[in-house]
Amino acid sequence: MAKYEAPLRDMQFVLHEVLGVEDRFSALPGQDETGEDLINSVLDEAAKLCQEVLQPLNQVGDQHGCIFENGVVRTPPGFKEAYKAFTEAGWPSLACETSYGGQGLPKTINLFVDEMVASANMSFGLYFILTFGAYLAISEYASEELKDTYLPHLSKGDWLGTMCLTEPQSGTDLGLCRTKAVPGENGSYLITGTKIFITGGEQDLSDNIVHLVLARTPGAPPGAKGISLFLVPKFIPKDDGSTGPRNGVLCGSIEKKMGIHGAPSCVIHFDEAVGFLVGELNRGIRSMFTMMNHERLVVGVQGLALSETAYQNAADYARERLQSRSLSGPKNPDGSADPIIVHPDVRRMLLTARAYNEGARAFLGWVGLQIDDSHHHPDSAAKASADDLVALLTPVVKGFFTDNGTEVCNLCMQVFGGHGYIADHGMEQFVRDVRISQLYEGTNGIQALDLVARKLPMKTGGVIKAYLAIIRSAVEEHQANPLLAEFTEPLDGALYELEGVTQWVIERTGINPEEAGAASVDYMKFIGLVSLGFMWLLMAKVAVDGPLSDDKKFYAAKLSTARFFMQRLLPQTHSLAVVICSGASSVMALEAEAF
Amino acid sequence: MAKYEAPLRDMQFVLHEVLGVEDRFSALPGQDETGEDLINSVLDEAAKLCQEVLQPLNQVGDQHGCIFENGVVRTPPGFKEAYKAFTEAGWPSLACETSYGGQGLPKTINLFVDEMVASANMSFGLYFILTFGAYLAISEYASEELKDTYLPHLSKGDWLGTMCLTEPQSGTDLGLCRTKAVPGENGSYLITGTKIFITGGEQDLSDNIVHLVLARTPGAPPGAKGISLFLVPKFIPKDDGSTGPRNGVLCGSIEKKMGIHGAPSCVIHFDEAVGFLVGELNRGIRSMFTMMNHERLVVGVQGLALSETAYQNAADYARERLQSRSLSGPKNPDGSADPIIVHPDVRRMLLTARAYNEGARAFLGWVGLQIDDSHHHPDSAAKASADDLVALLTPVVKGFFTDNGTEVCNLCMQVFGGHGYIADHGMEQFVRDVRISQLYEGTNGIQALDLVARKLPMKTGGVIKAYLAIIRSAVEEHQANPLLAEFTEPLDGALYELEGVTQWVIERTGINPEEAGAASVDYMKFIGLVSLGFMWLLMAKVAVDGPLSDDKKFYAAKLSTARFFMQRLLPQTHSLAVVICSGASSVMALEAEAF
Repeated sequence: MAKYEAPLRDMQFVLHEVLGVEDRFSALPGQDETGEDLINSVLDEAAKLCQEVLQPLNQVGDQHGCIFENGVVRTPPGFKEAYKAFTEAGWPSLACETSYGGQGLPKTINLFVDEMVASANMSFGLYFILTFGAYLAISEYASEELKDTYLPHLSKGDWLGTMCLTEPQSGTDLGLCRTKAVPGENGSYLITGTKIFITGGEQDLSDNIVHLVLARTPGAPPGAKGISLFLVPKFIPKDDGSTGPRNGVLCGSIEKKMGIHGAPSCVIHFDEAVGFLVGELNRGIRSMFTMMNHERLVVGVQGLALSETAYQNAADYARERLQSRSLSGPKNPDGSADPIIVHPDVRRMLLTARAYNEGARAFLGWVGLQIDDSHHHPDSAAKASADDLVALLTPVVKGFFTDNGTEVCNLCMQVFGGHGYIADHGMEQFVRDVRISQLYEGTNGIQALDLVARKLPMKTGGVIKAYLAIIRSAVEEHQANPLLAEFTEPLDGALYELEGVTQWVIERTGINPEEAGAASVDYMKFIGLVSLGFMWLLMAKVAVDGPLSDDKKFYAAKLSTARFFMQRLLPQTHSLAVVICSGASSVMALEAEAF
Repeated sequence: MAKYEAPLRDMQFVLHEVLGVEDRFSALPGQDETGEDLINSVLDEAAKLCQEVLQPLNQVGDQHGCIFENGVVRTPPGFKEAYKAFTEAGWPSLACETSYGGQGLPKTINLFVDEMVASANMSFGLYFILTFGAYLAISEYASEELKDTYLPHLSKGDWLGTMCLTEPQSGTDLGLCRTKAVPGENGSYLITGTKIFITGGEQDLSDNIVHLVLARTPGAPPGAKGISLFLVPKFIPKDDGSTGPRNGVLCGSIEKKMGIHGAPSCVIHFDEAVGFLVGELNRGIRSMFTMMNHERLVVGVQGLALSETAYQNAADYARERLQSRSLSGPKNPDGSADPIIVHPDVRRMLLTARAYNEGARAFLGWVGLQIDDSHHHPDSAAKASADDLVALLTPVVKGFFTDNGTEVCNLCMQVFGGHGYIADHGMEQFVRDVRISQLYEGTNGIQALDLVARKLPMKTGGVIKAYLAIIRSAVEEHQANPLLAEFTEPLDGALYELEGVTQWVIERTGINPEEAGAASVDYMKFIGLVSLGFMWLLMAKVAVDGPLSDDKKFYAAKLSTARFFMQRLLPQTHSLAVVICSGASSVMALEAEAF
């Protein structure tokens, strides 16, 4: 069975030593007490719960799955008790507003807790992250009355949230939504239609379920501009706030799927269910995107989270499994063979995992700080530019982290040889579970298209330019330091390539929009690699500068992994640049019938 | 549910138009009648059986799996009847020798049949390909008596074969084998020990099971040099050749695994089981490698086979699924949306699949011809050089084809969006099934190490040089043709890079053997890409030269896919060259405890 130990030391390194989050938080209203000790104790507590309560249920969840009978979904054995412990400890409320019973901590910290939860038990974590997304959308767009009724419960976790977008004919293309909303009593609406792939659409963990549903009102304009967002509770709250009568919401079935068996993907039928408008009529897509953008980031976190657990198990196995001798002579002469960690290719696989994971964790913290600034920074210019960066980088976190997630989980499974294919070891579960992260909340192709076709043109290219300038200035700041030359030089080269490719893509897209699509996934990988290179430079800087603690081996490992990243992962940009600049013609030429 | 249509047109193109196999076969003894018509009718018949009998059982096999009860394994519903139809039609005997009841057809043809069988039902095909491997090892190394007793049954298919190598402590490192063989009566041996991961180790398809088992005799030298190969039947044949008493061979359990649920992976206990030596004492590894090399090639074929089926289903889905509009304006204005095949990134995924698959199929044919020459060519120099090429390229077919297999199946699943994750569509089964191909018969890391550390040094680099010279001469032959410049130029560049990288790897490995391991997987991909580039040049040549048939669209699609390969897949070599030449230091530096 797989194990998991929360990477607390690495999280502390990123937060306190690399990013100095305390200083950043101190500039935000209400965060003056969010210092190193508080942050570390939050992370410590989360780690304990994840390791002791959630992780032991991960394989149970996979093997038992959810059971659907008579309209009711039963979650796997132990999930209910774990959820009780989780809510009693207050985790759902971590980043919720204090006015609704939340703890009001920065989202940056919440993202690191999200990582641990998903590492320990991705299926379990899904209930939690969807609920926080629903919280955000309601908080931003709903009436005061809806907020007062729903947010305290979502913060407390005794009610859970879902996101009801997809219909059989309407996935990526939300404009094809057919679910109807007709005006009902007292300003409410009656919602009728069928939604699919609703994670946690029905479950036995919470007293109530709060569905956020896209639907179309009578006479609404066709397409995406005629879609509104509704809050549809499973049980309609009474005036005193307690759960009242059952609403017209029914689970029709749950899907048989590749992984995340601990979280049911439900078909949900709405039959004249009472719903309440959230935000303006016909502006539902915009309101939903508040939730969606949160989910996209946290799905990116899932990619990192499963890579981390997979890595830990593969590294342990590689140190223990004795098989063959080192190419440079026996390293364990008294044993029957050497541990397989002596073999260069096993190390290549493990170091790829390390370099992606640690780079992604730092970048997650960096983006998290932009998110907190974008919500709370007192300076409006700083707030706006942080918001732009979040918009630019959300698809990168989602797409790049989850593409790497699948790659890394597969590499770590590969370390186990044939044993990796056997269910007992738990490695194949990571591969199956992480695979959904490339698909849901917008496929990675959609993320890449969003990045290239919508985000690059923001402010006539001003946002991407501002981001690349931040990296450029970090390179320039450290270029004179000979101890960092092995990091600044390759990053400088890749950044220079990226600047050129970015210009090329923006220009060509202006002429032919299909160029954006043809370049998109490769461009997303390119900017992801350079972003992680940026992080590895910052981390190497800390490690070189003289460690703040006496944990010398930790810093030596950072430098070693930074070298691996620069020498073996970053050079992927060379091929990406050539492929991107080959343009759209080779992609678009073949007739559809010829495929 | 997934569908499959055998790519007969493409197979015919490769065999008859690109490779001209008839001329090659006519040089081999006993093959003068193996002409185009005969080959096509064999492929047609195989296609029918695969499409109509094997493919409909593929999802059944996945969902039912095999059942182990009281020492007996029951294969999934329908497998028994399908196997009966398969043997009655004579498919197991296709490439077996006529002297043992076989049809004596070239292995090249058998490989194409293997592809269809694996495309239709990979689990089903496993029983078949392992048996042919056992046939080969017995045919090459066993006594006349053993051959006369066993080969006719293996050819007929009423007995099936297995390969028993792995033990819990002995996977890649076969020298750690502990199974014992002590001399018994009449020159037989008594075999005692436990083997794991034995595909088809127990089943209900055949009257008898012929295990080829690695074991150690008393006083044998330690390690790989003390291992012998034994034939251990489930039922000991009587003197008249019919199945006799049960031997001491028992199935202890079957594994719960990620995929290939239709083929049981058995724990097999040998308890003083009667076995017969195959080949010389203590030379068992060598004898086993006759079987193993066959299996490695056919595992490569599995990578291609699943990619092909996954591609076909993804292409169909992309033409049918309506979602969003083309970036360049509506292409299906009367529909609710455009088919997703209008989107550049969907096309990128599909074309990646096509370009890898069609390139791999051609390369498989090319390697198949070397195999046939290596066994039967009347000219001993031609025979020897073909044998060298097979040795060099076997790990490339196994490793590169199966790495691409996982990549392509994942891309094709991605085309389905969230629906790809749902079991019904069958796409996630391809991803789970194909994943084993990177692990078994030697992990792909082992293939790559074999290529770099054992095969590159063959004849002081003479074999790899000879292979690259073949590609070089094809480039030179077509370089003057302006219609082929778009193919010869990029291939020339990549080949030039490969020549340099090869020299670099050979030199560095001479100084430090760990350089071989550090370069290995990237080098394998490099040579794989150039090999497929070579094939795409040959295919483009046929397409440009004036089609032999009037199927103009087929040739236009070949040229279009060739362009995609050259512009978008081959350029991966640029990054691979940089990464390989970064050497072993970044891989070897980190201490084992720091992982």
